Amino acid sequence: MFENVEKSEIDNLGEFGLIDHLTKNIILTQPSTIKGAGDDAAVLNFEDKKTLISTDLLLEGIHFDLAYTPLKHLGYKAIQVNLSDIYAMNGTATQVTVSLGLSSKFPIEAVEELYLGMLLACKKYEIDLIGGDTSASKQGLVISITSIGYADEKDITYRNTAQEGDLICVSGDLGGAYVGLQLLEREKMVYLENPQIQPDLEGKDYIIERQLKPEARRDIVLALKEMGVKPTSMIDVSDGLSSELIHICKQSEKGCNLYEEKIPLDPMTFDTAREFNLDPSICALSGGEDYELLFTVKQSDYDIIKNNPDITVIGHITEQTAGMNLISRSGKVHPLKAQGWNAFNK
Amino acid sequence: MFENVEKSEIDNLGEFGLIDHLTKNIILTQPSTIKGAGDDAAVLNFEDKKTLISTDLLLEGIHFDLAYTPLKHLGYKAIQVNLSDIYAMNGTATQVTVSLGLSSKFPIEAVEELYLGMLLACKKYEIDLIGGDTSASKQGLVISITSIGYADEKDITYRNTAQEGDLICVSGDLGGAYVGLQLLEREKMVYLENPQIQPDLEGKDYIIERQLKPEARRDIVLALKEMGVKPTSMIDVSDGLSSELIHICKQSEKGCNLYEEKIPLDPMTFDTAREFNLDPSICALSGGEDYELLFTVKQSDYDIIKNNPDITVIGHITEQTAGMNLISRSGKVHPLKAQGWNAFNK
Repeated sequence: MFENVEKSEIDNLGEFGLIDHLTKNIILTQPSTIKGAGDDAAVLNFEDKKTLISTDLLLEGIHFDLAYTPLKHLGYKAIQVNLSDIYAMNGTATQVTVSLGLSSKFPIEAVEELYLGMLLACKKYEIDLIGGDTSASKQGLVISITSIGYADEKDITYRNTAQEGDLICVSGDLGGAYVGLQLLEREKMVYLENPQIQPDLEGKDYIIERQLKPEARRDIVLALKEMGVKPTSMIDVSDGLSSELIHICKQSEKGCNLYEEKIPLDPMTFDTAREFNLDPSICALSGGEDYELLFTVKQSDYDIIKNNPDITVIGHITEQTAGMNLISRSGKVHPLKAQGWNAFNK
Repeated sequence: MFENVEKSEIDNLGEFGLIDHLTKNIILTQPSTIKGAGDDAAVLNFEDKKTLISTDLLLEGIHFDLAYTPLKHLGYKAIQVNLSDIYAMNGTATQVTVSLGLSSKFPIEAVEELYLGMLLACKKYEIDLIGGDTSASKQGLVISITSIGYADEKDITYRNTAQEGDLICVSGDLGGAYVGLQLLEREKMVYLENPQIQPDLEGKDYIIERQLKPEARRDIVLALKEMGVKPTSMIDVSDGLSSELIHICKQSEKGCNLYEEKIPLDPMTFDTAREFNLDPSICALSGGEDYELLFTVKQSDYDIIKNNPDITVIGHITEQTAGMNLISRSGKVHPLKAQGWNAFNK
């Protein structure tokens, strides 16, 4: 059954053959992995640490468009998106499981590309791929990933523990992934109208990469640990700054003041948003998929974090009755809304 | 955003509203669950135990047909299928995560039915539903479940540890789920040809239930523990007895003799297979989806297990060079094949 690889179709390999083919190069490096793929379940050993588990489902036509998403990038991103959740708990990510639903017409080389991207992300972030499920799909590409990690109980950061007076911080810059997506969508439309025209993405590497190949911010978790700063709450920015900050405030039963002028924007994000007649701040507030970390720290930690170029203070936590507010560049106060596009009018 | 429940469409609830709506009745009972749904990741505490993780993907049109699968049963089965993998490690299942891809046309009542079935299974098997992901789907219903459990390292049973001379045992009876599926498929065809005709499933409850509402064999794991018997290897029967026994033999680098006459068949499975002109033994060997446990025990444990009505000895492990053999009722020796339908000729 395993000999027909040259015909390059999944049907020829069968499920077990495919899993074998894809997983034969996997090297396990995490001391916490006792048994990876190949049995009914993986076996992990976190000793006296707490186990962290998160899961995400990525569906073709909803979360990605294969028209402009290279499969290797998609694999890489699928892993990053999941690791980001473990880092957002202030944890160490150590393993992932990967389930794939694949059309039988999907060439084996395409699955290999997808896997290459996944394994690249795993290698870079020291993650063991410990199993999963592979199935035929009548429904386009389905990717389901569960990420696993650990943390000391005292280090875990939840969403519901922000305190009044805490500073609201965000890593990196925001809105780039969304603006990058607009660019890719535009070039797709141009291509569909006239396949002779080459995509015009020159000089837009940064925001294209923000969309297609994001990096989970393990470095920020490590940097905070090194600085001796434990965030009082933390979440990753997958749905947009507004939505995530609202999660922290609602779950912590607090309010906030968020200052538009403080939101970190890359110049390319800013300029490209303008080209599309988009408000760059709204791209940051509602765009999503930046996979930066949004967190709160005690005011007393300000002097420690202020010189880190990857961390920006964008506001502070208030009492709940003060509401969740966005203070615009002109000083006007707007209620913060999760769906910024139509819901708030500057 | 959460007020439009009466309109009963998922679009009105939005992702967070839907998750909120579905998870509001979840009660966490496992002492190992520190934090369930509602943060970036769940937090679990297995102390000095090892963590077990398994994951399965269920896709509409591949793994289930909504034409004859009630959603509540589907939810129940989706959980059972996953728990079965933890039991097959000789572990205790404690948590699941559930990711769903749902068409926006799927009425909220349908999702509620699916969830009801899942929560029923969770309650019966003392499992905490600790999170997941909910997404729109353009592709039919997608269900991805990760099951989590624990075990003492010394109790874990792998597939690759069967020894020469060990007895091959199976719980319950086999082939019923497959024959039940044939019955459901036949009635679906009859209905499609003439919607006036009511399905004729009378008296076939057992095999229909084997297909639509299987039970993972936690009871066998507990019974073995109580008897003081640790299987030398174990796997659950999801793909058919042949395929699973081949996994154990190949991974253990052993051979086997499997006796056709010993394979436990329910009379209803036997009779219905005959109605369909199917060989009942082949239904057991290649049908799959029985979710029984296939395991090996030391010969010295025979006296302890022989009186358990839920356990049948069906053969024994041999040295690898003796091959993997099926001994038919007539005494003829056939090589055991994973795809029994065409591959072996009695």
